[in-house]
Amino acid sequence: MTTIRVVLAGLGNVGRGVLSILISQRDLLAARYGLEVLVVGASDSSGAALDPAGLDLGRLLALKSERGKVAEFPGGLPGLGGRHLIERARGDLLLEATPVNLQHGQPGLDTVRAALDHGMGCVLANKGPLALAYGELAAVSDLSDVDRPRLRFSACVGGALPTINLGRRDLAGARILGVEAMLNGTSQGILRAMEQGQGFAEALAEMQRRGIAETDPTLDVDGWDQAVKLVILANAVLGRPTVLGDLRVRGIREITRDDLAAAAARGERIVHLGRAERPAPTADWVLDVGPVSLPAAHPLARMGALEMGVIYRTDISGTLHATSEEGDAVPTAAAMLRDLIEISR
Amino acid sequence: MTTIRVVLAGLGNVGRGVLSILISQRDLLAARYGLEVLVVGASDSSGAALDPAGLDLGRLLALKSERGKVAEFPGGLPGLGGRHLIERARGDLLLEATPVNLQHGQPGLDTVRAALDHGMGCVLANKGPLALAYGELAAVSDLSDVDRPRLRFSACVGGALPTINLGRRDLAGARILGVEAMLNGTSQGILRAMEQGQGFAEALAEMQRRGIAETDPTLDVDGWDQAVKLVILANAVLGRPTVLGDLRVRGIREITRDDLAAAAARGERIVHLGRAERPAPTADWVLDVGPVSLPAAHPLARMGALEMGVIYRTDISGTLHATSEEGDAVPTAAAMLRDLIEISR
Repeated sequence: MTTIRVVLAGLGNVGRGVLSILISQRDLLAARYGLEVLVVGASDSSGAALDPAGLDLGRLLALKSERGKVAEFPGGLPGLGGRHLIERARGDLLLEATPVNLQHGQPGLDTVRAALDHGMGCVLANKGPLALAYGELAAVSDLSDVDRPRLRFSACVGGALPTINLGRRDLAGARILGVEAMLNGTSQGILRAMEQGQGFAEALAEMQRRGIAETDPTLDVDGWDQAVKLVILANAVLGRPTVLGDLRVRGIREITRDDLAAAAARGERIVHLGRAERPAPTADWVLDVGPVSLPAAHPLARMGALEMGVIYRTDISGTLHATSEEGDAVPTAAAMLRDLIEISR
Repeated sequence: MTTIRVVLAGLGNVGRGVLSILISQRDLLAARYGLEVLVVGASDSSGAALDPAGLDLGRLLALKSERGKVAEFPGGLPGLGGRHLIERARGDLLLEATPVNLQHGQPGLDTVRAALDHGMGCVLANKGPLALAYGELAAVSDLSDVDRPRLRFSACVGGALPTINLGRRDLAGARILGVEAMLNGTSQGILRAMEQGQGFAEALAEMQRRGIAETDPTLDVDGWDQAVKLVILANAVLGRPTVLGDLRVRGIREITRDDLAAAAARGERIVHLGRAERPAPTADWVLDVGPVSLPAAHPLARMGALEMGVIYRTDISGTLHATSEEGDAVPTAAAMLRDLIEISR
């Protein structure tokens, strides 16, 4: 049995999902992979709790489900976070699930850098550090040729949907000719609910209640969440050094129920789509995010309200299409667990 | 640059696809992976051709496209195959794409055993050896805990569709609750063409003309091709030691155009489906292959004539669904290339 000492930064929907699956999959991890996972530190915006013998996950989950603060947990340290959290907790692996910030990437970016400095592995669900420091972080990830990758981020690009793994591993040897993706559950849920007659605000509130939409939905409905995912995909899969400013990004706030009904009358469906296309085989990629009216039979138009999906068109591997149906944040936590297992073996 | 010396056994649709992509992806393999692939031996049922400096792939492809015999190629050796081919060719890696045989697994099984005996890596597109010697072969594959897996077979379970990779890597940490799959292009093509008014024989002939259906379509339309794929999936992904005799297998020969029209009138579609289900969470898996009438909105009912697909329902990773659209045998060859790249790094 190998024991992995984990520091969990961020106890929102995804972080609580991590706690719940570390409880529910404990026996499976031991039996299938010979892994025992101890959470030796956990943080939220109030501070952190540390326990070298492993925090009581059930008790911590109960506290956070009642909107408690981890600083008030037994062993709690108000204000502890970032580099200090890493130095005090002394873990093997960081699970980073703090909120996305696209201006400065904090607190995630400093926490990740500190963990790497201390030789820890890192698993990210937070896209902010990658959006702002892609080159620095990719150099120590499974995207580089380092023998022992120390950073993985499969949860960043579509939750449990293995968007990056499909593009890099399963299409190894192929040339990708084009990518279409719908990788934002909030936008998808809102558009599909509006087709059923709900208003934008009503549909958004429902997404927030279920823990799919963030309290601040700006990144989702204005397209920036998908734009960051497309930036990561362009760098990691297409091999194109890409920053947010390279993309044309449009949101879905101006889409009305009338627009959706008109699309349906045409045999189409409006989808909040991210695309990477090349006007010619050797031309630069054109990357954009925005609402697109697709034929109803298009695989990304056929998706339900809880699905995300990606399509890769290739030269020798045909067309590969994958979708994931996720009703809450647990599958995103499961993607972090898949990275943890790989990095720990 | 790393040079990989390959022996290609089998020069049917898939083997010719391997020749064509080793030509078309030569520059990509060098630039992206630092790999040069030399085919130092190639065999068909007539014999083999050997060249330690690498056979002329374009010339070999032209010969086989004109239904020529490799024994008549420069350097050709009539009757050479199996263990003798491996001993004479002295390669690093075997690409095995000879026809499936479910009685004795030959000539593939002996060739694979000889290659493993000589320390070569093996990439299989031929399911026969796995169907008959799963345990023996899995022990040296990426399914085992060996440090350096020497055998991969992702082309065996749905061509370019990464059926096994999804189940083992991308759902690592999750419990699989159920699997549904449609992994036979011939059956799918025939049923969808019959919906458009074609007869069974006419639709089958069209599949054969395109190189999707085998000359002997028995394994496809009677369900045995999918049954073998489900056996591999049950062993490799579900962890259930499984042999063909464990499955209930039915084909599509008795499905009529009237049946398909009646399903459509009910808002359903008949799909040749492989399924793994558990009646209760701790009960044994029930495995079957047969025509099933699915609701038209079911992801595997929505697929087109050239698509194959799989659905994994899980406890923590939501529902993962992937489809692959493949118009000929090249994507299956591309799956062999993906395995070659992984095994060579």
